[in-house]
Amino acid sequence: MRKTLFQIIEPHQQESFIEEAYDIFMILAIIVSLIPLTSKSHSGIFIWLDLITTIIFIIDYVLRFVTADYKLQKGRISFLLYPFTFLAMADLLCILPSLFLLNDSLRLFKILRMLRTLRIFKFFRYSKNIQILTNVLKKQKDSLIIVGVLALGYIFVSALVIFNVEPSTFPTFFDALYWATISLTTVGYGDIYAISTTGKIITMISSFLGIAIVALPAGIITAGYMKEIKEL
Amino acid sequence: MRKTLFQIIEPHQQESFIEEAYDIFMILAIIVSLIPLTSKSHSGIFIWLDLITTIIFIIDYVLRFVTADYKLQKGRISFLLYPFTFLAMADLLCILPSLFLLNDSLRLFKILRMLRTLRIFKFFRYSKNIQILTNVLKKQKDSLIIVGVLALGYIFVSALVIFNVEPSTFPTFFDALYWATISLTTVGYGDIYAISTTGKIITMISSFLGIAIVALPAGIITAGYMKEIKEL
Amino acid sequence: MRKTLFQIIEPHQQESFIEEAYDIFMILAIIVSLIPLTSKSHSGIFIWLDLITTIIFIIDYVLRFVTADYKLQKGRISFLLYPFTFLAMADLLCILPSLFLLNDSLRLFKILRMLRTLRIFKFFRYSKNIQILTNVLKKQKDSLIIVGVLALGYIFVSALVIFNVEPSTFPTFFDALYWATISLTTVGYGDIYAISTTGKIITMISSFLGIAIVALPAGIITAGYMKEIKEL
Amino acid sequence: MRKTLFQIIEPHQQESFIEEAYDIFMILAIIVSLIPLTSKSHSGIFIWLDLITTIIFIIDYVLRFVTADYKLQKGRISFLLYPFTFLAMADLLCILPSLFLLNDSLRLFKILRMLRTLRIFKFFRYSKNIQILTNVLKKQKDSLIIVGVLALGYIFVSALVIFNVEPSTFPTFFDALYWATISLTTVGYGDIYAISTTGKIITMISSFLGIAIVALPAGIITAGYMKEIKEL
Repeated sequence: MRKTLFQIIEPHQQESFIEEAYDIFMILAIIVSLIPLTSKSHSGIFIWLDLITTIIFIIDYVLRFVTADYKLQKGRISFLLYPFTFLAMADLLCILPSLFLLNDSLRLFKILRMLRTLRIFKFFRYSKNIQILTNVLKKQKDSLIIVGVLALGYIFVSALVIFNVEPSTFPTFFDALYWATISLTTVGYGDIYAISTTGKIITMISSFLGIAIVALPAGIITAGYMKEIKEL
Repeated sequence: MRKTLFQIIEPHQQESFIEEAYDIFMILAIIVSLIPLTSKSHSGIFIWLDLITTIIFIIDYVLRFVTADYKLQKGRISFLLYPFTFLAMADLLCILPSLFLLNDSLRLFKILRMLRTLRIFKFFRYSKNIQILTNVLKKQKDSLIIVGVLALGYIFVSALVIFNVEPSTFPTFFDALYWATISLTTVGYGDIYAISTTGKIITMISSFLGIAIVALPAGIITAGYMKEIKEL
Repeated sequence: MRKTLFQIIEPHQQESFIEEAYDIFMILAIIVSLIPLTSKSHSGIFIWLDLITTIIFIIDYVLRFVTADYKLQKGRISFLLYPFTFLAMADLLCILPSLFLLNDSLRLFKILRMLRTLRIFKFFRYSKNIQILTNVLKKQKDSLIIVGVLALGYIFVSALVIFNVEPSTFPTFFDALYWATISLTTVGYGDIYAISTTGKIITMISSFLGIAIVALPAGIITAGYMKEIKEL
Repeated sequence: MRKTLFQIIEPHQQESFIEEAYDIFMILAIIVSLIPLTSKSHSGIFIWLDLITTIIFIIDYVLRFVTADYKLQKGRISFLLYPFTFLAMADLLCILPSLFLLNDSLRLFKILRMLRTLRIFKFFRYSKNIQILTNVLKKQKDSLIIVGVLALGYIFVSALVIFNVEPSTFPTFFDALYWATISLTTVGYGDIYAISTTGKIITMISSFLGIAIVALPAGIITAGYMKEIKEL
């Protein structure tokens, strides 16, 4: 009976009706549990939504714990290991804030619940297109990390230069980092920008070079994607 | 005679002079019918433009209805089915608001008229370049939908996080969604942005990761386009 | 002697020292002639710069006219045709405003002088990289025009929708067009933006779809470039 | 013994424990030396950090000078040449401002220290992905320079046009250049923008065409990257 349970709660390729229904039910529960987060009020309906979904998540957590040996396939020791796996800890963190409704500061922990929506992607795991995309990201992972580090370094250097050139505009180094990120991603809200001529020159140079930085990830992803669809 | 009519109103590959003239005349009528929408005044000239183009569209609608059996090729039942086809309903919706000139709230329905300009693209259907472009979009449709859903999910999560982190800046969840869309598409008007340090950190992270999200559709389209022009 | 003159003023592949010197001299004259445009003052030095460069351009124009038969290779009729070629008319338009120094409204005509800097690119004509780039742009010209028309249409439709949805924010249709262009190119100054909820929803949708529009030219250029460097 | 020293301070492929430790120690020293730049205060801890790291850099400079003959492999003359190599001069410039703590205007020279972090990339030199990236940038260098010059020319022309069309908004030509750079890189802070209708039309045209300019480097990098990973 525990084996049947495990097959129901764990998504896999060819699912029976009950297994699919459970997956869909859980996704709906996640979506419903996020509704109270999109509002500021603490009215009755939201408390009830929270209560119901929390109970569902607790039952799901217990079911997953009880079938941990099928999941980890390490015999009895699985029950000890399971609570410390990444997903199990995320599950627990999602449930905790709802148990202490009064504490508002933990409210954001509920967003961790969205980590669970990542499980939805397990469905798509078998889709050809998702497979191509994840393959591209996997194979180009190293390149993307290098480009990411390069971009972060570029942002850091730009921030360091502007912070020392125009200290009157940027009260703290964090402000300079914020300015550099918003400028080099070309968002450019306009809430903070260099005023002095030197600062403007630095803005111009770093924005201009920033185009190349932004072009790098696009290039890597495109090239990887190209290669992937050719090999199919 | 009805068959000749049908050949005139329906665009196809090798068109005679009259057939081409009808197409161009209808496109001009559509453009002229949009002129009153680019102004706030309700002066006489605009009412007349509206009246004339509406009459043209009504005649066109009737002609299309009368030749529906040639279009749908399902015998007499075509006349019953035709008014419920997508284009016929769009045509009707375009005509309706002009018939009730006084009602301003329906004014926007006239924009549906622009759907008719899509018919212009039927001309280009035979152009090699348009063919390549539509082929790319068709073949990569699934990938583009997945990337679109991914981007929408990313916007939703960013909005949810910022809304709970900085409720003072974002009065409603809609404001947070608006902020997330404007930030991640790198438009960044600067009408709404995070003020608190936590909010700024979230802005930085989501903008930075947003580059990769924006790079994905570009990569897919490029790779698809590349493949398409190679196969020619 | 006229033939020697023609060889000097006309850039071509393997240039002698005098020919190269003339090209460089003319480019310097163009740059110097633009200096008065980068300032608001009408001081003596600028008037002198203008006078000297204008005289140089007049001499160059005369020299080009005198050797027109070598350029157009149509015998005597070349002298009649030459003043009506695109470059000759641009040359004339550049000289004219300097001849009437007092008239400020024609000042901008001098910017046409920059058209002459395009002649510099004739140098690069023989560079392998420039050749690749121009080949890509030439071969993909049709696709780029279609994508350009598509983008312009998209901007027009967005402007039409926002203008009718939020007439209070956009006084004229031109403002709506300006808003649409600045939003969809993701510049987003923040000088004009939708305030109403409907307007914001339209902003969100059009910005989101705008990413795909922006991705199209990038895709076409990349794919064309890819193909070009493969064929070399 | 000098040879052992040289092997320790110079990064190379298969490093022993001591050699790797020295590299990591120097990187940490660089990072620590930048900490005082991220703050406005001149408190004791920052002066100490500066003092310690400066001493480390002086020792490193001396060690590198002493082993210059192994580096340059030109015998005794190496000791004369070494101080004039690019990296040695950068090293010296990094040390100088710390020796005169009171002089704030030289503070920015310390940012040159970051040039030394480029040495970290020597580690990655042997990474396959970094090799691909640098190969792409090297092979496409000429194309990227041409595109860069083109973009700079485009910015310059846009600035010249707007400066002469709307002199009331742009006090100096530098402001026009700043506006053009911020607009065409699509940052668009909104601190300076055209107000007149002519100015807005120019903004629209230059932003619209700017997309193609931005697409060019992305296209070149992608195509180069594509070619590179195919050849592996």
